[in-house]
Amino acid sequence: MKIARFSSSGSIHFGIVDGEDLVVLGGDPMFQGFDTTGERIPLAQATLLAPSIPRSKVVGVGKNYVDHVQEMGGDAPPTEPLLFLKPNTSVVGPGDTIVLPRQSQQVDFEGELAIVIGSIAKNVSADRAAEVIFGYTVANDVTARDLQRSDPQWTRAKGFDTFCPVGPFVETDFDVSDGTITTTVNGEVKQSGPLTDMVHGVAEIVAYASSVFTLLPGDIILTGTPAGVGQIVAGDVVDVSISGIGTLSNPVSGPRS
Amino acid sequence: MKIARFSSSGSIHFGIVDGEDLVVLGGDPMFQGFDTTGERIPLAQATLLAPSIPRSKVVGVGKNYVDHVQEMGGDAPPTEPLLFLKPNTSVVGPGDTIVLPRQSQQVDFEGELAIVIGSIAKNVSADRAAEVIFGYTVANDVTARDLQRSDPQWTRAKGFDTFCPVGPFVETDFDVSDGTITTTVNGEVKQSGPLTDMVHGVAEIVAYASSVFTLLPGDIILTGTPAGVGQIVAGDVVDVSISGIGTLSNPVSGPRS
Repeated sequence: MKIARFSSSGSIHFGIVDGEDLVVLGGDPMFQGFDTTGERIPLAQATLLAPSIPRSKVVGVGKNYVDHVQEMGGDAPPTEPLLFLKPNTSVVGPGDTIVLPRQSQQVDFEGELAIVIGSIAKNVSADRAAEVIFGYTVANDVTARDLQRSDPQWTRAKGFDTFCPVGPFVETDFDVSDGTITTTVNGEVKQSGPLTDMVHGVAEIVAYASSVFTLLPGDIILTGTPAGVGQIVAGDVVDVSISGIGTLSNPVSGPRS
Repeated sequence: MKIARFSSSGSIHFGIVDGEDLVVLGGDPMFQGFDTTGERIPLAQATLLAPSIPRSKVVGVGKNYVDHVQEMGGDAPPTEPLLFLKPNTSVVGPGDTIVLPRQSQQVDFEGELAIVIGSIAKNVSADRAAEVIFGYTVANDVTARDLQRSDPQWTRAKGFDTFCPVGPFVETDFDVSDGTITTTVNGEVKQSGPLTDMVHGVAEIVAYASSVFTLLPGDIILTGTPAGVGQIVAGDVVDVSISGIGTLSNPVSGPRS
């Protein structure tokens, strides 16, 4: 089931994607279930929003694809998931503009599979991780590469407003072992590969993260990016697609005052 | 004015400290102002809670006192504020237990002044920073020192549940230039010094952080710790006091399953 969060006629709803329509839900399905209002809205008339609002955390996992570790000049991926945090103020939705900050001269895209947490989760074992996952969406872990290199921590490089596009849908029935991820910039393929190339898999990541902090419903975990990352500049459009979920498309603009 | 958030007879309120009493407020003063209900509750009968709930971010500033940089083996503090994030799930209140995680063999206290943001703030200049500050409280930036050294990022070391005690009050009229901070463990003084020893001052920190991410009401910024940090073990009680605000006291327990 594909869940969208959207605005239509000035109000915000959740809906289930059904062909070219959205079947409107009575509330946030993470908390209020999947009862529908009976109303249908054409997808084309809805403005899609970030499908999950992390009230607490966006957790990232760094260096989680071997070929990306190598392109960044590293030898081997970390033996444990390399966690970092992005603030929830960095989250934007499908179609929203990635705004390049004036502090950076090199902002890169990073297409990623994102886990959407559905339950309060602490010390969840890997074999029970699926129970706390609401679904999966697509994310772009936008990164100011120059600041990532120069700053002692990645907080600034990965934390700017608009640096975490997510969407377009949360797929509740996604099978990670079947998925492939493709990132294009202005239509040119930059990243492409199977999600099974991840070093630390989804269940291991959820178990590891939940051994550190309590995960809350709506929290998002970005699972790392494959090789092929590169710079985006004003005027670009970056699309991250995951087979079975959808395409997250975002334009890029220069700094705003 | 000292603001407390507290529970009493099963419900949660905000109140203004008035001698030995709390004058109960009609709502969260950050959003609903300072109208009182007329009710008074003895401080001794209230259970104090974390006085601010960060809906978005707890921002930390690393290496912001020269003597602490030196005790950690460094030469000079960073030329810009060294930002990191703690998740809001790490926040606990006065009297709450700091739970040592089984992943670490060395958890340290770090007594700090905390800024409580009161307005939506983006690209605020240093000379207007005061306009977006609701007040100040006391914090303990609890840190798993061994994991801080071994992990590529500080996220895990500083992010465990209970690793961000804050309180007991938010002082809205605090003058940083007058304040001194003192941390004791089991009554023995470990850290003591003036807040004016900060390398990057409050206004500069707010300006810098707000140039990266939008700060939201309730967000907390920890301003760094002076020299004297050290380990806490199960059974300890760690008190962080700032003159003019109050004392944040937290017991320490061993790992829980």
